[in-house]
Amino acid sequence: MEKRIVDTVNALMADKNWEGLRAAVTKLPYPDIAEVLAEVGKTERVLIYRILPRELAAEVAAYLEPDDLHFLIQELSDAEARHLIASLRPDDRTFFLGELPGQVTQHILNLLSPDDLREARELLGYPEHSVGRLMTPEYVAVRPTWTVEQVLGHIRQRGRDSETINTLYVTDERWYLYGAVDLKHIILAAPTAQVSDLMRTPAISLNAFSDQEIAVATMQRHDAFALPVVNTDGVLVGIVTFDDMMDVAQTEATEDFHRAAAIAPLEDVYTATGIVPLVKKRMGWLLGLIIVNLMSSGVIAVFEETLSATIALAFFMPLLIDSGGNIGSQAATMMIRGLVTGDLTLGRWATTLAKEAAVGGLLGLLMGGAAAVLGFYRGGYELALVIGLTMVLMAVMSNLVGAALPFVFKRLRIDPAVASGPLITTVADTVGLVIYFTIARMVLA
Amino acid sequence: MEKRIVDTVNALMADKNWEGLRAAVTKLPYPDIAEVLAEVGKTERVLIYRILPRELAAEVAAYLEPDDLHFLIQELSDAEARHLIASLRPDDRTFFLGELPGQVTQHILNLLSPDDLREARELLGYPEHSVGRLMTPEYVAVRPTWTVEQVLGHIRQRGRDSETINTLYVTDERWYLYGAVDLKHIILAAPTAQVSDLMRTPAISLNAFSDQEIAVATMQRHDAFALPVVNTDGVLVGIVTFDDMMDVAQTEATEDFHRAAAIAPLEDVYTATGIVPLVKKRMGWLLGLIIVNLMSSGVIAVFEETLSATIALAFFMPLLIDSGGNIGSQAATMMIRGLVTGDLTLGRWATTLAKEAAVGGLLGLLMGGAAAVLGFYRGGYELALVIGLTMVLMAVMSNLVGAALPFVFKRLRIDPAVASGPLITTVADTVGLVIYFTIARMVLA
Repeated sequence: MEKRIVDTVNALMADKNWEGLRAAVTKLPYPDIAEVLAEVGKTERVLIYRILPRELAAEVAAYLEPDDLHFLIQELSDAEARHLIASLRPDDRTFFLGELPGQVTQHILNLLSPDDLREARELLGYPEHSVGRLMTPEYVAVRPTWTVEQVLGHIRQRGRDSETINTLYVTDERWYLYGAVDLKHIILAAPTAQVSDLMRTPAISLNAFSDQEIAVATMQRHDAFALPVVNTDGVLVGIVTFDDMMDVAQTEATEDFHRAAAIAPLEDVYTATGIVPLVKKRMGWLLGLIIVNLMSSGVIAVFEETLSATIALAFFMPLLIDSGGNIGSQAATMMIRGLVTGDLTLGRWATTLAKEAAVGGLLGLLMGGAAAVLGFYRGGYELALVIGLTMVLMAVMSNLVGAALPFVFKRLRIDPAVASGPLITTVADTVGLVIYFTIARMVLA
Repeated sequence: MEKRIVDTVNALMADKNWEGLRAAVTKLPYPDIAEVLAEVGKTERVLIYRILPRELAAEVAAYLEPDDLHFLIQELSDAEARHLIASLRPDDRTFFLGELPGQVTQHILNLLSPDDLREARELLGYPEHSVGRLMTPEYVAVRPTWTVEQVLGHIRQRGRDSETINTLYVTDERWYLYGAVDLKHIILAAPTAQVSDLMRTPAISLNAFSDQEIAVATMQRHDAFALPVVNTDGVLVGIVTFDDMMDVAQTEATEDFHRAAAIAPLEDVYTATGIVPLVKKRMGWLLGLIIVNLMSSGVIAVFEETLSATIALAFFMPLLIDSGGNIGSQAATMMIRGLVTGDLTLGRWATTLAKEAAVGGLLGLLMGGAAAVLGFYRGGYELALVIGLTMVLMAVMSNLVGAALPFVFKRLRIDPAVASGPLITTVADTVGLVIYFTIARMVLA
């Protein structure tokens, strides 16, 4: 959204042109109205929210960030706040309530009607990051014995409050999930056709206690834009929709990116995270890797005499250390991403490591050649031999370490993303320095 | 899918139990059948495909990888292959044809009916990674003046071949896109209500020549599971659906992960990429960074005397180099991810760098303290002072370099993900070594 929409809004407000303001704001898409609300001042926010038609106000609220929504609720009267919260979709409401401090959540729960209160309490009862937290009970369920005509009558009666009626879920009278039927097939069928003839069984479904990652993978696998959620008895308790899944997928990807750089997952987005929490999320691995780095210092100390004899060896330490770390990080990143997307599986470790041995060897020959040329200019044939040979061996070793660690972690049921660039770099360093000084001692002695 | 399904299939085939085989396979979800086809031998693949009911066979084909589909087509008769390709959804067909070598594409295009051929040619005419490549022309369009009754009649006539009828698109007689209306609102409205009263205008739409990343972002922003695609005149030319968007989002994320580790984006998934292409995608940055690393070698050469005088300084080189690289990579990763997800914008560079200066300072104090203790044990007070002080300054500098580079690249319209861990590490090294030896010369002189 361009800046000028907010400017227009502010200008209309300065002119007290309420009709113009209402006209300008209501014609915007929902997320843009939400952005206007987030960007104007507090007083203006309440004012603009109040001039929105009721139904539009409810839609817009779903696009506000929890913090902005919270501020808005504080400024509104209790009656207005109650209406706003009641109008949110149950899944959006659960997300919003889950983001607020416990005390505030309690205050808002008190504003809800007994029915909405029971529903909110139930959804908040599922563990964090579980499918249950994302589901909405707003779906349409039909019976296998109903005709198309009965289904359409039921939809007209019940569908208004549903998040989606594109897929209908087929259950028995105890709400045990049988199958699913697309509205498309209902519309296209004869009015007397039965649901049982149109439905696809068994329905692909999710367990309410499963991790949200499983929901994303299932949705992606089956190209489904909504999936039914069942409890452990197979009873239908809600549905999850693709929009929430896309948000989950993005959050998971951000966590993986952060882990790959040795940062513990943040609770919130970067801009909403303070300096001290950021330091806490980053210091763990940084300090831990200082300890691991003692091995490298130890290796150099052991070879102190070799180094003192030929100080030019020090010139190439950063080059060798960095190259080993880079090649190892490349390999680890490819393995981690392959394991996350399902392109690689644990069972393929042997063929994959064989492939990476070949890749590492070829890269080592290229890098060794380049490094040998540099070594020659700085210190003649002998140094060229040492640097070149070290680079080849180190490339193969670092590549194998980088490729193997994600499989090892996965096997130990640790997130393979823990094999971060920084960790691989630190491990590759020690290996590389041992190779470097051993070759140097043999060649230069 | 568990291994035993493939085993069951193979056992049934060995027994020549065709009825049992058909029963066992057809009851599986589409993606599982596709997996069975991909995992059994070539002869078995054709056999299993042939026993599938026609409609099911078409659905399953959409889930096959381009390579597997290609093998299948080669084994089938021309008539069977024609039916298979004709039964694919246009967007799946375009993707499949775009993945094959040009000659093969031509052979397959020759199998198509004139209508399908025109359609395939048109879709292939859009640039790679453009929205046009993902769109399907299988949607239902309605006119603003139609009544609900007319719309339902039109759907029954045209909807059978549509990928989705959950949203209908409203156009004038020249196919200029006016708005969109959800099937839900059609079903719930009175039979005499007019489309113009139910539709939302203007419709959120995509340009066929836009990058697919824009489509993903627009879908995510508007929580839309399908979006209409228009040409530059605003004429409706197709729709894109969320399932293709989720695939695009996953591919983009993989590319970003690879870039973060200094790997050029692969054309295909890792397991489908050979050793030589892998080497090519990885060697560019590895060799380039060797050149950049010459700066570090140069710095050490300049300070050769300082190093010779106190060889213990070499012990801590890996520690300082790695720590600077780690902290810089952390900062760069957070910025890159923030810029990709939209949490950060270019305009926020000043506040963000100020925040990172503070974070870097605090991390530096923690790491400097830890490093000073190690320095003391190895070389007494003076070395402790050098190591500790270097670590503090280097942490702040590396953190700022890591945080600033993604903004610089973004400003220069280069993908900020180019500020990869390996690049940051190499740059941070040179800065770190200058700081290290300068302090060492002052303190130890």
